[in-house]
Amino acid sequence: MKIAGQHYRTIWVEDDGDAICVLDQTRFPHEFATRRLRSWQEAATAISEMVVRGAPLIGVTACYGIALAMREDPSDANLHAVARSLTDTRPTAINLRWAVNRLVARLERCTPAERAAAAFRESAALSDEDVATNEAIGREGLALISCIAAAKAPEQPVNVLTHCNAGWLATVDWGTATAPIYMAHDQGLPVHVFVDETRPRNQGAYLTAWELGRHGVPHTVVVDNAGGHLMQHGEVDLVIVGSDRTTANGDVCNKIGTYLKALAAHDNGVPFYVALPTSTVDFEVADGVREIPIEERSGAEIRYLNGRTASGDVVRVDILPEGSGARNPAFDVTPARLVTGLITELGVFEASPAGMARLRGAMAGAASGLAAAG
Amino acid sequence: MKIAGQHYRTIWVEDDGDAICVLDQTRFPHEFATRRLRSWQEAATAISEMVVRGAPLIGVTACYGIALAMREDPSDANLHAVARSLTDTRPTAINLRWAVNRLVARLERCTPAERAAAAFRESAALSDEDVATNEAIGREGLALISCIAAAKAPEQPVNVLTHCNAGWLATVDWGTATAPIYMAHDQGLPVHVFVDETRPRNQGAYLTAWELGRHGVPHTVVVDNAGGHLMQHGEVDLVIVGSDRTTANGDVCNKIGTYLKALAAHDNGVPFYVALPTSTVDFEVADGVREIPIEERSGAEIRYLNGRTASGDVVRVDILPEGSGARNPAFDVTPARLVTGLITELGVFEASPAGMARLRGAMAGAASGLAAAG
Repeated sequence: MKIAGQHYRTIWVEDDGDAICVLDQTRFPHEFATRRLRSWQEAATAISEMVVRGAPLIGVTACYGIALAMREDPSDANLHAVARSLTDTRPTAINLRWAVNRLVARLERCTPAERAAAAFRESAALSDEDVATNEAIGREGLALISCIAAAKAPEQPVNVLTHCNAGWLATVDWGTATAPIYMAHDQGLPVHVFVDETRPRNQGAYLTAWELGRHGVPHTVVVDNAGGHLMQHGEVDLVIVGSDRTTANGDVCNKIGTYLKALAAHDNGVPFYVALPTSTVDFEVADGVREIPIEERSGAEIRYLNGRTASGDVVRVDILPEGSGARNPAFDVTPARLVTGLITELGVFEASPAGMARLRGAMAGAASGLAAAG
Repeated sequence: MKIAGQHYRTIWVEDDGDAICVLDQTRFPHEFATRRLRSWQEAATAISEMVVRGAPLIGVTACYGIALAMREDPSDANLHAVARSLTDTRPTAINLRWAVNRLVARLERCTPAERAAAAFRESAALSDEDVATNEAIGREGLALISCIAAAKAPEQPVNVLTHCNAGWLATVDWGTATAPIYMAHDQGLPVHVFVDETRPRNQGAYLTAWELGRHGVPHTVVVDNAGGHLMQHGEVDLVIVGSDRTTANGDVCNKIGTYLKALAAHDNGVPFYVALPTSTVDFEVADGVREIPIEERSGAEIRYLNGRTASGDVVRVDILPEGSGARNPAFDVTPARLVTGLITELGVFEASPAGMARLRGAMAGAASGLAAAG
């Protein structure tokens, strides 16, 4: 998407081929900075410190991390050790594992001498694939937004609420939850986005509001507490969120607080859609609430936050009383019964065991189609 | 309650009788400061700027504001003008109106010369009444906590989740939602409180965590997004929140985000109690969602927040991207169907038209008992 008129992706190889470049998302929205990753360790740190975040983007970053490692030592032992370390950086994101496992399987078929070049090539292909996937998600979601727009008075915007950042910055381009929004906006459909602040890391306020603003999409930031009230009063036409992992039952693991918005949407008859690449589906897990381990992050993420002072300096401030502890579960699970539909690159599916079985069939069909085409 | 071993109320008359003193709640938890109110205008500003907040405390503050005004000009015209101005400072809080109207009715029966002294006397009586009310709420709620404790293994704490600050700092002493917690703790029942941060003004993190910490009650701050996840995993035994206004149907208007926690409690079979003085019941309103006007406050409350830097300075920081707007509804309404019970100073009542009718009967009985005793 665009920043000040210039097109960017969130990750790219530097022109000299020496390093990977990413946008430093820990410094948004107060500063715009890129960060060079010159080793797999720097890629791992970028993932664990959330310089890059978002399920699709961390998958691509981890793959480029393997590529950097293969340039130094392309042995089987190093390939597997680095792959394990990179997979361990974020335990909840399913497509980090998916992307790394796919790359490892392909590199195992190469000689060590071929591995670095192959890994860079595969990582670039994965980037392009992510962009194509998100474009397809965007087209599917655009159809839903167009339907809602058609039922409203002309010029009345379609009001979408989103949580966290399943945006352009979470992917290589377009975003998942935001792809339908960007497409609607670019086609001239009036769309307005309520952006959940998304404590504790404020990805909504820091990232989603920032990227929507740079692209020119009308939006309003609200605190995470406000969505229920807005839905009670008919101010939200639909909710679209992302997913870090979706189960064989259709349960959706996503940023902490997603479940509360799904409850409110259900209570008020507001459609609640989840946009996801099929790579984030985990058919090994059925009951998301019981089976998915939820990452507990440091309470420091609640205690400290960054802001800009009146003089323009960016400072870290402590907002809790001395002596008060904090608990910080990073994700929650929204049961399938609260989800209206899953918007994927292969179409919109029902969040239920039957819907997920159909999605699995579509995935198998797409894979065999790809294999036939290849 | 106690701060560093010393007993405080949240509002008192200075020893020289010249001014009202309150704790400046805009400066918690980073600074402990008192603020002198020397005129009704300063009382009004203290309410509108939330130096004092919480339904019971703003009622008492407004009454003392009238007392200060009567010292300057005890005319009927001034009495009514000041009463109107003070009532207008916060449109949602029902017992602000209740306290002011009660005082005005009493002062109308005095000669102008008697009014200042009478107003100070009545305000002091209202303060003592608030303390007695909260003690009674505490005893009713303590019985609920004791029941839950009895069903748990010994030493296993009862985990209470609360939202915003319906605490000691919202009242003259004890708090409403916190009164049962303080009583349980003081009696040696193991109790632990999950404190919702409560964006945008962070009353949970800034006030509830602070007051629980000063009194020594074990507690953990969580972001507003986390409560649903905690309830899904059995980590919350009951929810107790306050209420700014409760309707004849039993609908509860309280701090924005309360509705989301009520939905999560309902979805997980967690008891959801509302602690309230009966003075906050509005029998004129039936359907809270449709009928209660919700105060929309400035988006600046979302954009800016105060924190302590590493060097100990308290600074205001901006956390939103430039150009992003914010919407800030301050309250929401929890439909009665999601409320397990209303803990009042007259007992625990069902949140339903029938329960509210019984509460109304109890209120009439208490009033006639008081009249007979007087």
